Amino acid sequence: MKELIEIGKRAKEASGQLANLNTDQKNRILMLVADLLEQYTPTILKANAKDLELGEEMGLNGAIVDRLTLSDDRVKGMAEGLREIVQLEDPIGEIEEMKKRPNGLLIGKKRVPLGVVGVIYESRPNVTADVAGLCIKTGNVCVLRGGKEAFQSNNVIVKIFHEAIEGCDLNPHMVQLVQNTTRESAVAMMKLNDYLDILIPRGGAGLIQAVVQNSTVPVIETGVGNCHIYVDDAADLEKAVAIVYNAKTHRPGVCNAAESLLVHQKVATEVLPAIGNSLKKGNVEIRGDETTCRIIAEAKPAVEEDWAREYLDLVISSKVVGSVEEAVDHINKYGSGHSESIVTDNYSHAQYFLDRVDAAAVYVNASTRFTDGFEFGYGAEIGISTQKLHARGPMGLRELTTNKYIIYGSGQIRQ
Amino acid sequence: MKELIEIGKRAKEASGQLANLNTDQKNRILMLVADLLEQYTPTILKANAKDLELGEEMGLNGAIVDRLTLSDDRVKGMAEGLREIVQLEDPIGEIEEMKKRPNGLLIGKKRVPLGVVGVIYESRPNVTADVAGLCIKTGNVCVLRGGKEAFQSNNVIVKIFHEAIEGCDLNPHMVQLVQNTTRESAVAMMKLNDYLDILIPRGGAGLIQAVVQNSTVPVIETGVGNCHIYVDDAADLEKAVAIVYNAKTHRPGVCNAAESLLVHQKVATEVLPAIGNSLKKGNVEIRGDETTCRIIAEAKPAVEEDWAREYLDLVISSKVVGSVEEAVDHINKYGSGHSESIVTDNYSHAQYFLDRVDAAAVYVNASTRFTDGFEFGYGAEIGISTQKLHARGPMGLRELTTNKYIIYGSGQIRQ
Repeated sequence: MKELIEIGKRAKEASGQLANLNTDQKNRILMLVADLLEQYTPTILKANAKDLELGEEMGLNGAIVDRLTLSDDRVKGMAEGLREIVQLEDPIGEIEEMKKRPNGLLIGKKRVPLGVVGVIYESRPNVTADVAGLCIKTGNVCVLRGGKEAFQSNNVIVKIFHEAIEGCDLNPHMVQLVQNTTRESAVAMMKLNDYLDILIPRGGAGLIQAVVQNSTVPVIETGVGNCHIYVDDAADLEKAVAIVYNAKTHRPGVCNAAESLLVHQKVATEVLPAIGNSLKKGNVEIRGDETTCRIIAEAKPAVEEDWAREYLDLVISSKVVGSVEEAVDHINKYGSGHSESIVTDNYSHAQYFLDRVDAAAVYVNASTRFTDGFEFGYGAEIGISTQKLHARGPMGLRELTTNKYIIYGSGQIRQ
Repeated sequence: MKELIEIGKRAKEASGQLANLNTDQKNRILMLVADLLEQYTPTILKANAKDLELGEEMGLNGAIVDRLTLSDDRVKGMAEGLREIVQLEDPIGEIEEMKKRPNGLLIGKKRVPLGVVGVIYESRPNVTADVAGLCIKTGNVCVLRGGKEAFQSNNVIVKIFHEAIEGCDLNPHMVQLVQNTTRESAVAMMKLNDYLDILIPRGGAGLIQAVVQNSTVPVIETGVGNCHIYVDDAADLEKAVAIVYNAKTHRPGVCNAAESLLVHQKVATEVLPAIGNSLKKGNVEIRGDETTCRIIAEAKPAVEEDWAREYLDLVISSKVVGSVEEAVDHINKYGSGHSESIVTDNYSHAQYFLDRVDAAAVYVNASTRFTDGFEFGYGAEIGISTQKLHARGPMGLRELTTNKYIIYGSGQIRQ
């Protein structure tokens, strides 16, 4: 696709310059963008209104419209987000593990940008500013392919980046927005190996699977979370009720929300009624196995596919299990490798769960809602990886970098 | 494909056990395999003879037959390789960056196996023992799909692993060899996302590209090396001649051998004749640009595609450039991101080259032949990554691992 090849070429050109800017130069761009975002708020909101108008014609649902909508506060939030990125330490240029080999070669690993980062995303225009900010800070050129529902908003935001970058006498192509928002441009990005070093899909399960299945560019899979809370026979039941309620209802539409409850049979009759009552107050529908349905009258019977569902809604599946081993097997079978939590006061059960559950984040006695770059103390997040290569769990600045070996010699040849 | 799904299921089953073995248990398997390999040398050589016989019928070329051929010494080498892996530090279980968050959550990154590692490789039966050994040490189940030309040898080696693993009362499916060696099984492996966490192709450029293009399983791209030596105007010319000769002729068939020479125009008339003479003694064919051909009478004219070629043979392309900037641009345009070296005594040129060349290993005043897990001090190597995600450069034990976040709470819920 012609547009993407042009974008790719410009990205490669911009990459050498951006990768070699020092931290002050990169921060200067980000501060300038933050100021301009605030200054141009009316322009941004006008563009956003156009998107919303089109969205209404397209009949977008309420959740999408909510994600799409900008306001004074949300624009201010974008600007503040960039100022926070300025405060973060720049990982680029750090040299690790420098060592002298017996032959006198001095070998070190230098942290460098990935190069050109592609991101395919939906709805939220603030992703545009977040991703571009994180990429600039880490010396990465970004190619942004947002959804057509947010095109006007995204376009204005990227123009503001260009104004700031050109104000610093630098190559504006370090941030580029794909103008074609058809399916075709997403597919073309997935095959853009000559120009993209990495592709990150941010959005629903459908988008992510399409990218994983079709991309020849290396992908970081983000986001899908079928997260479990396992209430062990040795659980503090009060904590269990609070953790289940929090993990399910605090923000049901996000990936670290709990989707499934497992309860040890020894405590099922005691704790399930309390959990049932608490979830009822939160308007949560329970889909239970036979035992759950016997104990909680309101529970609906679960079918096999409920165990693997990411509801992203006020629904939770519930199953009674015979042991921590059974709980772990169930989680490893149906989970998506995102976040899993055990509630227990038994040391061995806690260790077994931590050792055996195969997921990005494994908790003892805490809500799964903490899986988040900010909660983990990274100050930023470009997504939550559910794959094992390169990055696993919340990805901050460091996950947008790679290394190169630099070797200082004095004429060494191999014997 | 039925065989691979069965293998995948068995691999997943074995994975939980292997991932949780302690270092002593894993080392015990490796020591036992090493002993058995030596003990069964006649059996291995008999199987290898069958492969060689078939290879003759198939009309395999000399280089492949050489890679395929085992001997007493080569079997001993495999056993020694495993004993060396025993000596290496086990990265699994190490917890990094444990920190307490303001809310009391204790968050750490625990180093864990990737899970199930698939490897598609050609010819060399010693890869079977190497890869299985590295995978066992790092707690990874491996699914090995070797070439049909080495099937009998690979099969005996894997049976020896099984005997050792069963001798330790453990699940032998931690090492599995795909029995079907048609193209179909390789293609099926590339789509085995449900069971494989990673796929590593080891072999020629054709195999690697086929895997990169077709795999939906995350791939680590290894090996293709179009490596350059740039002789700067400030080079020590004696070192330059020695480094070029070493990088080109020490072992021309491997990925870290030099394939292309760049020379600054200011020193071209002085250094090219010396390089030409030295390479002539090494029977190296030079394919040069106009200037090179004017200076070295024996040089043949290079065509555009020579700049991107990985000859893996006694051939080198040669081009005269006007500056270090031009050299770096040429390398970034035609290089494969493997290993690149500058010969210079100019500080700024050295730094510019280190900063701007985009490759896994960037050298000053040394032969590119040092890009190797053993030379870098890792004691082992599963391949050399030329991609930027997850691993870049020589991959040792650590590159076969990932991390999971483990979080110790005391009832925390998100506010």
